[in-house]
Amino acid sequence: MALEISPQKTRVGFIGTGVMGRSMCGHLVAAGYQTTVYSRTKEKATELIERGAAWAASPREVAAAADVVISIVGFPSDVRQVLLGESGALAGCKAGNVIVDMTTSEPSLAVEIAEQAKKRGVTSIDAPVSGGDVGARNATLSIMIGGDAATVTALEPIWKTMGAKWIRQGGPGAGQHTKMVNQILIATGMIGVCEALLYGYKAGLNLETVLESVASGAAGSWSLSNYGPRIIAGNFDPGFFVEHFIKDMGIALAESRRMGLAMPGLALAEQLYQAVAAQGHARKGTHSLMLALAHISGFDWLNRPK
Amino acid sequence: MALEISPQKTRVGFIGTGVMGRSMCGHLVAAGYQTTVYSRTKEKATELIERGAAWAASPREVAAAADVVISIVGFPSDVRQVLLGESGALAGCKAGNVIVDMTTSEPSLAVEIAEQAKKRGVTSIDAPVSGGDVGARNATLSIMIGGDAATVTALEPIWKTMGAKWIRQGGPGAGQHTKMVNQILIATGMIGVCEALLYGYKAGLNLETVLESVASGAAGSWSLSNYGPRIIAGNFDPGFFVEHFIKDMGIALAESRRMGLAMPGLALAEQLYQAVAAQGHARKGTHSLMLALAHISGFDWLNRPK
Repeated sequence: MALEISPQKTRVGFIGTGVMGRSMCGHLVAAGYQTTVYSRTKEKATELIERGAAWAASPREVAAAADVVISIVGFPSDVRQVLLGESGALAGCKAGNVIVDMTTSEPSLAVEIAEQAKKRGVTSIDAPVSGGDVGARNATLSIMIGGDAATVTALEPIWKTMGAKWIRQGGPGAGQHTKMVNQILIATGMIGVCEALLYGYKAGLNLETVLESVASGAAGSWSLSNYGPRIIAGNFDPGFFVEHFIKDMGIALAESRRMGLAMPGLALAEQLYQAVAAQGHARKGTHSLMLALAHISGFDWLNRPK
Repeated sequence: MALEISPQKTRVGFIGTGVMGRSMCGHLVAAGYQTTVYSRTKEKATELIERGAAWAASPREVAAAADVVISIVGFPSDVRQVLLGESGALAGCKAGNVIVDMTTSEPSLAVEIAEQAKKRGVTSIDAPVSGGDVGARNATLSIMIGGDAATVTALEPIWKTMGAKWIRQGGPGAGQHTKMVNQILIATGMIGVCEALLYGYKAGLNLETVLESVASGAAGSWSLSNYGPRIIAGNFDPGFFVEHFIKDMGIALAESRRMGLAMPGLALAEQLYQAVAAQGHARKGTHSLMLALAHISGFDWLNRPK
């Protein structure tokens, strides 16, 4: 029986209503899906409940009340717990249900979940996203998907509620691997953005004017255009937390090791971000790499002499 | 007396008619400037001479026949020779002349040239460019300028013949420093592009499809969009030579050292590009970093199993 998804026919379960999940689940509620939510901290689900979502006491109970269960939590260990644990979603699923994990997590764990799910007649899809809190809020996420092709196609109405782009990259784990490609690009690129601005500052240049010369040409990047001005202004509020980025780089390095790949740039980025965290910036944004790099060279970026 | 630049009033000298210089000088000839050229290899100037440029036997003779002397050569040592050497341009200049060095070269050398020039009543401007051979051909270069503000403004008719963007970044050397910012961004960003694609390949992903997911979002960059497809296709023809890029990174590292800045990402990039050159790719394009990274992990990118 082909999977048919619509607000009328499909009950959705949602696990994890943090910064990302709250917005994403909100779009499903707004689209009219009957939604049941669970989050480690119930207060984070209050607004969704007020808007009509039902509350369940565990991921397992979420699954029992849903046809499609979506999760977006913090770390791979959280994914394992909310999906494969005793009170996890899979334990509450019936044959024919679908699990969609949108956490950025381990490709190998995505494969394991898909295998466990299959044994119960459940299809599991990995579908991490890029686009951050703004993309989640505006439903403009890029969704990178791994898993059964027919199921991925059937889920289009759901992708559409939260994403501007959704692409199936292959079987189980392929969504996670693609997200790793994304994070490797951002990690190493951020070193360039910070070192380049650090150099320009030390050379006595006006960094705003420098950005005018370099940001739209061969040296240009999304990170430079979006984080460059914030770095110059000294605004290190998180778009994406350093501690989550360190998790992602750790996954990419572990997978690289497993695949027999030397990744000198990624390894350096991970180490520099360890310094960022060690200096107390784990809950700042990823562009606070600048604070650590300036500190390494002996000065305080936020109080730099003009 | 204010400097007035026009094809009617201004005689231009041009030193260095390589891939970049040939196109740039060609725009001046096309605009109607009376132009005298010198190049180490005369054959490279043949086409310009056929189009009406005069030939001079040395940079000094170029300068003697010109009001504004432009140079774009290979290495800082070449800049020193063609501008400050015995048969160099400065020796042929009269008071009121202008020297414009558009080579990517040392900021400190730009300062030295400006000081030497000043003693003879000559104004020297550093004005390296980005945009590559295509930008030179299409007159869409981004010109990063250091030197006397009034002179930079007076030179607008000349900037306009070859550039889409020209921005004064400060006094002597500021153009070169800005170009270093540009190169630092490209160097470190290229590590990310290559490692990310390497990871995606090893993970068994379809790299074209991966680019669709990641290139237009937060991981996007000019390098990824422009070099990504060429790397996947195995086309490592030079847009910009590895050996020139190594020169640029060496300058940026030396300046960083002088300024008391640790640049771990740039240092890693420089070392990886030393490996690229050591593996025989000095005259390939900068994106051939991919060949070296694959080689480091024990396989041949050009003959990778599909």
